[in-house]
Amino acid sequence: MVQKHQVVVIGGGFGGLETARRLRRVDVAVTLVDRRNFHLFQPLLYQVATGGLSPANIASPLRSILRRQKNCQILMGEVIGFHARQKQVVLRDKVLSYDTLVLAAGAGPSYFGNDGWKTYAPPLKTIEDATSIRGRIYTSFELAENETDPERRKELLTFVVIGGGPTGVELAGALADISHHTLVHDFRHINPKEARIILVEAGGAILSTYPSKLTQSAARKVQELGIEIRMHTMVTGIEKDRIELKTPSGVEHIATHTVMWAAGVKPNPLSQALASEIGIDCHKSGRIPVNSQLNIEGHPDLFVIGDIAHCEDHDGKPLPGVAPVAIQQGRYVARTIQVRLRGDLEPEPFRYQNRGSMATIGRKAAVAEIGKFTFSGFFAWLLWLLIHLMQIVQFQNRLLVFFQWSYSYFTYNRSARLITQPSSERAQDLPADSKES
Amino acid sequence: MVQKHQVVVIGGGFGGLETARRLRRVDVAVTLVDRRNFHLFQPLLYQVATGGLSPANIASPLRSILRRQKNCQILMGEVIGFHARQKQVVLRDKVLSYDTLVLAAGAGPSYFGNDGWKTYAPPLKTIEDATSIRGRIYTSFELAENETDPERRKELLTFVVIGGGPTGVELAGALADISHHTLVHDFRHINPKEARIILVEAGGAILSTYPSKLTQSAARKVQELGIEIRMHTMVTGIEKDRIELKTPSGVEHIATHTVMWAAGVKPNPLSQALASEIGIDCHKSGRIPVNSQLNIEGHPDLFVIGDIAHCEDHDGKPLPGVAPVAIQQGRYVARTIQVRLRGDLEPEPFRYQNRGSMATIGRKAAVAEIGKFTFSGFFAWLLWLLIHLMQIVQFQNRLLVFFQWSYSYFTYNRSARLITQPSSERAQDLPADSKES
Repeated sequence: MVQKHQVVVIGGGFGGLETARRLRRVDVAVTLVDRRNFHLFQPLLYQVATGGLSPANIASPLRSILRRQKNCQILMGEVIGFHARQKQVVLRDKVLSYDTLVLAAGAGPSYFGNDGWKTYAPPLKTIEDATSIRGRIYTSFELAENETDPERRKELLTFVVIGGGPTGVELAGALADISHHTLVHDFRHINPKEARIILVEAGGAILSTYPSKLTQSAARKVQELGIEIRMHTMVTGIEKDRIELKTPSGVEHIATHTVMWAAGVKPNPLSQALASEIGIDCHKSGRIPVNSQLNIEGHPDLFVIGDIAHCEDHDGKPLPGVAPVAIQQGRYVARTIQVRLRGDLEPEPFRYQNRGSMATIGRKAAVAEIGKFTFSGFFAWLLWLLIHLMQIVQFQNRLLVFFQWSYSYFTYNRSARLITQPSSERAQDLPADSKES
Repeated sequence: MVQKHQVVVIGGGFGGLETARRLRRVDVAVTLVDRRNFHLFQPLLYQVATGGLSPANIASPLRSILRRQKNCQILMGEVIGFHARQKQVVLRDKVLSYDTLVLAAGAGPSYFGNDGWKTYAPPLKTIEDATSIRGRIYTSFELAENETDPERRKELLTFVVIGGGPTGVELAGALADISHHTLVHDFRHINPKEARIILVEAGGAILSTYPSKLTQSAARKVQELGIEIRMHTMVTGIEKDRIELKTPSGVEHIATHTVMWAAGVKPNPLSQALASEIGIDCHKSGRIPVNSQLNIEGHPDLFVIGDIAHCEDHDGKPLPGVAPVAIQQGRYVARTIQVRLRGDLEPEPFRYQNRGSMATIGRKAAVAEIGKFTFSGFFAWLLWLLIHLMQIVQFQNRLLVFFQWSYSYFTYNRSARLITQPSSERAQDLPADSKES
């Protein structure tokens, strides 16, 4: 018996999962490796971070998604390196051989060299990040309710979101909803509406990858929600209860208990590991450069896709790190593997079909760019809702999320606002559970 | 202006929450103190521990439940002691004065003096316990899938539940469902049906508080699910991957990666703190003895209810630590406070109305005792479902839980089976996330 062609896919995000699924009718043996047992629908992570959805609403077990795909096995484990010459992936406790490797390990937060900031300005990339931010946000309101010193209370009710991309804007918008609607009857000593929400952006516009018409409309909507935008502003320091900003008019300090980081990403360190193993340089972004077949040049057995790949569009611009790019790349890679195994001609070079992009701003507005059309306002929000619901992988999640959203929308409620898993770093704030649970 | 009568309620569980809510039309100022920001519907915690429901499905924010009750404020904080003479409750960072105190702080797990066992046999009392057990269960299957040594694989697929009360039986039943249905197509190298589930009970019957007819029927159902029951068996040692049992026929060792503790409870340590402050002795169970008005004898300003109170029925038997007792006691206390403030006659002594009790066994059976009637089997299961849904506090949760259950029931799916928050103790098993998240 001839052993089947072994495809090892690293990462169960949008790109890796799509690759594995598209290989279901191809005569190969697929091994999907992920550190987690679930696929995460990252675009809605901010909803978990603000208590609108539960983690399980946006995370589907990989085994459940792929249970019927008999040519695919899932391996929960951590990749720590590669032996490219032997065509092997090194896991912590075993070694996997491949004929074709698809690296889709994604990206994590980047603090631009200031990793110490992470303690006070957590990122939003994992379920644990989201439940931790959720705990911080609602704990700040709880502490403010108990606080008698007006200065300290103000500090507790000041929320700073760093980064004016989609995640930052969506987080800030959801925070505005929380303070203006969700919590409005909940407290006796504070008025949640007095919460101050500041969105810090280094450049000259929020959602800067969108056309300038939408950018301006987004900025207006954000300000209507009472959010302060600081453009052209760099973060120069983050410590407990205080951040330092460099603004066009000088240095500013803001006293704040809650800072959230949505400013930068960097690829998974496996990019460096693979690049040095095969003797190439990463792009200055840290991503691995790929050719128009999504291979590392000269290595037709090595595909790199999604946020960890540096892939240039036909006009030489790098593709953005968004789900649709990764999904289209995954599909392309699966087809290329199939075509090459058959011995057919090489497929056309990969071309990203930009079907548009969108971001929400609170509970009633969004901006959307679809082909030549741009939308903003409530219609864009409905469109955003529809498209995101359609994309969520599993049937159950789609209905559950729809149900929860409808309910939350009409009642302004956020039922998942639990303060859980107090970690050691929060112990000084909240004695709660530190001893018993 | 005369200050209102101050009622301080400690604990937002079934008893404390009911007390606070029943005081809504009484001319008092209520302060509800809890370490958590939510009320937990504990009877369904085993569903979270097995991935059937999300934490937010069974936890409602206290502020959300009580938002419209203007005479009630909520204080998230930890009580550390009492000054009974000054009528004060001492929190970690402030002191609260009361005219009437209602202690409803509940109970936690008891390891009968072997607290070291907790590391390897976690309890099931909090949301964090439940998500941690969920992670352990599904991680064991993941590790077994990757394991080549048959002995170690067997160890990974052996699950031991200690304690044959309702929690233990429900956990074991859900584990049987997981291994026989939920995961049946999910793995390529193991057969989840080979999982061995052992239920350890020190006494001679499971669900021993039920009538013997039900007890026998429950034991049959449990065995039909393939669960091994060890009666008259004491745990004498728990260490990593191994437990030691003292059975009627001698000492037995079982190699197992996953042990769950559902064997004993003990009251919150505040029982001891209050008892010694006012110079009384706790009952040998650690609970505070109360009289038929639910007061500590001689202290009409001190009520103790729920799992932390030792309250004897009219025939001298202590009331069990279950939700209906706490709820009825909370209602009684609220009425007693109102009656005394009005200066009316004392109310009748508290009498617990036992409306029945029930426990589920897997996804098709339950045992129920209602008045003189006993049920078992599918009808009892439906009844159990109905009653639990009706009891869940908030409208949204009820529908969401119903929806999720219906879906899970017909598809055998458990969509919330996420392995999250890997804590330090699990790091040796799963390198996953230990570095990056």
